[in-house]
Amino acid sequence: MTPERLERINTMLDKRQPDLTVCMEGLHKSHNLAAVVRTCDAIGISDVHAVWKSEEAEVRGGSAAGSQNWIDVHNYHKTADAIAALKAQGMQVLVTNLSDTAVNFTEIDYTKPTAIILGQEKFGTSEEALELADQHIVIPMVGMVQSLNVSVACSVVLYEAQRQRAAAGMYDQPRLSNERRQRTLFEGGHP
Amino acid sequence: MTPERLERINTMLDKRQPDLTVCMEGLHKSHNLAAVVRTCDAIGISDVHAVWKSEEAEVRGGSAAGSQNWIDVHNYHKTADAIAALKAQGMQVLVTNLSDTAVNFTEIDYTKPTAIILGQEKFGTSEEALELADQHIVIPMVGMVQSLNVSVACSVVLYEAQRQRAAAGMYDQPRLSNERRQRTLFEGGHP
Ligand SMILES: C[S@@+](CC[C@H](N)C(=O)[O-])C[C@H]1O[C@@H](n2cnc3c(N)ncnc32)[C@H](O)[C@@H]1O
Ligand SMILES: C[S@@+](CC[C@H](N)C(=O)[O-])C[C@H]1O[C@@H](n2cnc3c(N)ncnc32)[C@H](O)[C@@H]1O
Repeated sequence: MTPERLERINTMLDKRQPDLTVCMEGLHKSHNLAAVVRTCDAIGISDVHAVWKSEEAEVRGGSAAGSQNWIDVHNYHKTADAIAALKAQGMQVLVTNLSDTAVNFTEIDYTKPTAIILGQEKFGTSEEALELADQHIVIPMVGMVQSLNVSVACSVVLYEAQRQRAAAGMYDQPRLSNERRQRTLFEGGHP
Repeated sequence: MTPERLERINTMLDKRQPDLTVCMEGLHKSHNLAAVVRTCDAIGISDVHAVWKSEEAEVRGGSAAGSQNWIDVHNYHKTADAIAALKAQGMQVLVTNLSDTAVNFTEIDYTKPTAIILGQEKFGTSEEALELADQHIVIPMVGMVQSLNVSVACSVVLYEAQRQRAAAGMYDQPRLSNERRQRTLFEGGHP
């Protein structure tokens, strides 16, 4: 690796937010998966979680998500397992959903360790996710369409999180553990 | 039309923001066009502008954008014509671009009449658009990817505009002219 490339990667790792993540529940359109992971990278997310409803989806979706070398994708077959893992890391679990009990997404404190669950393109989030999450959040809409594209919804919430974290100085100091940094450098340097 | 449907449409028209718009320059992936128009509808945009580089693109793209009955799409063949039309309406013209001279998108006052230019998936915005626009805006990124998906970039900027306009009370009073409301009701009611 050239010194320039190493510096570029270290600068990126200095901004990573290990305590902010996204969990994609059953997403199946590869352009949506790719757009979600791309936005995650852009705001400094290091880990993404994915629940796959079938083996086939995992393979197809995994390759779209895996186009991003620098993000770790954690795979599950059950929503409950994903949410348990996120809660075990001390995360508040938010589910994006168009329910009446959902709060406006701007009302959340995203400087806390946070996981955001995204629902499937057609069917939305599962009953299980809605039950197990700590909070439902909604992005206000005033038009005729019923919902936003899932990668759009993800990005709108993530850039609100980015805004709050930038204001709180959370991008000013490296936040990744040293072990994780070394592992990422090692794995990313050997493609 | 049932009274319920008429009321639903009038409620939507009460929130429309005729002085906020998007101009898509040469976009060609139909899922991106569809996602842009869907977000526009969701935040209350009534008019969208599109510059097409070829007749063929116009037909293909037009049908994706036109899936949304309630938004007027204005078509152009030249970027200069689109920008002249927007400026003639008293709009500040912002171009989304990754240039060094671009300001952070959150620094803009979106309560002013505003048009946001989006660039093509692969090649970005044209030199012409960069020259003729009043301001370049950028969405900060701290990862390894070079850019965001175009419909994602559009939505992040539009929801910042929505936030500012909601705070300024711009969704509390109808803002569409009566002629425009009547025309939309007439056209939308006869699919
Ligand atoms: C196309 S939507 C699913 C629509 C589905 N028919 C439903 O009612 O849930 C796909 C996903 O995008 C996210 N989403 C879309 N619009 C949203 C909004 N306005 N607020 C919060 N999340 C949204 C949610 O994660 C949702 O599960
Ligand atoms: C995929 S990008 C184009 C990338 C192209 N290679 C370039 O350098 O402009 C497509 C469009 O999305 C918008 N875009 C993507 N990321 C952006 C960002 N971080 N800030 C502002 N606009 C962005 C711009 O409108 C851009 O023209």
